[in-house]
Amino acid sequence: MKVVFIGAGNLATRLSLEMQRKGFEIVQIFSQTTTSAAALAGKLSCPFTTDCQQIAADADLYLFAVKDTVLPELIRSVAPNNGLWAHTAGSVPMNIFETHARRYGVFYPLQTFSKTKEVDFSVIPVFIEADNKHDLNILHQAAERLSQRVIPATSEQRQYLHLAAVFANNFTNHLFAIAQRLLEQHQLPFDALLPLIDETAAKIHTIPPIDAQTGPAVRYDRNVMDKQLELLDSDNLKNIYNDLSKSIYHFCEERKNTTDHEQNK
Amino acid sequence: MKVVFIGAGNLATRLSLEMQRKGFEIVQIFSQTTTSAAALAGKLSCPFTTDCQQIAADADLYLFAVKDTVLPELIRSVAPNNGLWAHTAGSVPMNIFETHARRYGVFYPLQTFSKTKEVDFSVIPVFIEADNKHDLNILHQAAERLSQRVIPATSEQRQYLHLAAVFANNFTNHLFAIAQRLLEQHQLPFDALLPLIDETAAKIHTIPPIDAQTGPAVRYDRNVMDKQLELLDSDNLKNIYNDLSKSIYHFCEERKNTTDHEQNK
Repeated sequence: MKVVFIGAGNLATRLSLEMQRKGFEIVQIFSQTTTSAAALAGKLSCPFTTDCQQIAADADLYLFAVKDTVLPELIRSVAPNNGLWAHTAGSVPMNIFETHARRYGVFYPLQTFSKTKEVDFSVIPVFIEADNKHDLNILHQAAERLSQRVIPATSEQRQYLHLAAVFANNFTNHLFAIAQRLLEQHQLPFDALLPLIDETAAKIHTIPPIDAQTGPAVRYDRNVMDKQLELLDSDNLKNIYNDLSKSIYHFCEERKNTTDHEQNK
Repeated sequence: MKVVFIGAGNLATRLSLEMQRKGFEIVQIFSQTTTSAAALAGKLSCPFTTDCQQIAADADLYLFAVKDTVLPELIRSVAPNNGLWAHTAGSVPMNIFETHARRYGVFYPLQTFSKTKEVDFSVIPVFIEADNKHDLNILHQAAERLSQRVIPATSEQRQYLHLAAVFANNFTNHLFAIAQRLLEQHQLPFDALLPLIDETAAKIHTIPPIDAQTGPAVRYDRNVMDKQLELLDSDNLKNIYNDLSKSIYHFCEERKNTTDHEQNK
């Protein structure tokens, strides 16, 4: 299977290297940035171009792994061909291809990627969508060569996936950044928190997060909460503390009511 | 070293079992709840009591591993003796012992514990504090038999540790619960998020969280953010989304300015 990559960022890098390792033929890299295109093409020992008029026309699969914002323009600038075009974006609907590509779909691996850090692709879920069954099958087979977990999902479902990933990855990482700042402001080493953070992530492999919840907000302990609010030095942090505490309390109360109701049945 | 445990909850369970394994002599368990006291004493093959008048007077160390709320009352009800008394609470100052115990301190292992799940104690940081150098040494030596990481910290520092732990553990876990709800409401499996969650935690072992930050809030992309806000079905979740996004943006801008400033030096 001949594959052209449109993009040479973190995801394009990790995905193209893994696909090559799994026997896909990466025939070309396109990127508007010469250094990125050259760097990735170098790793893959394949040609690259920065001119979208020069994109090879005879590949089987065109993977658009670029920022959401440049995706519409790029799709318009590639000349239509008979290959299957797929983007890798969580929050972009499949029909972005509609008026331009003949065959199209989505290939969304749910993970955070960096250019340098290797990841184990086999455990990364890949969410796929296509305009017809035949092309969905092609994407399914391609994804299965990389990952044990291939899940068809609609464009609407993928929006929620992306939103859930913002909570579980972007927002979570920011809570770690806040914790780091609190510790460093008081001459405490951030890495002392790592075992707690690891255990927080490990726990929910076996216990649903709603059942793993602990802390003062579970019982809405105003005494502890007010003391902790006083320690925070900005209104924004106080708002985050209050909103999250309220939400924890609501989730736990709802959970209690559901459980009570189930037990009374 | 003879140790009495006041408390039989998650922390008391994990800590007493680990101490016994490391050669400490657990001489007695006290808990106000007979079943908890009996269960833990059974695991340790040691005596227990539910009567605080019956607490052994000749131990070297008394570890108060109970809820913050019952700590003051319990300290008052145990008859003063010559042992070293220490509590295990993040947010309670050491001077809670002042008017009652002769020798006292704090022994705070920073981790989330469950009665059933074993943890690797050797990597858990233990924060210690004592009223005098001699007793600090005793706590230091005891902690070093359990963990590679023993850190003296004042009561004030410990407040911030506990606050940082609320962000990194309690609040983070709640973000996982929100993500789970979003997925399940749209017929998507929560466990598909686990590789992303694991990688989010793994990344900050090598990259500081502020540098690992990604997502629409980094560039304050109102287009993506407004679309995502529309997907959230409660004001509380919208508030959490907005507050965290604002805070991410502020942190990233500050970081950029610091880096620029350093480069201009």
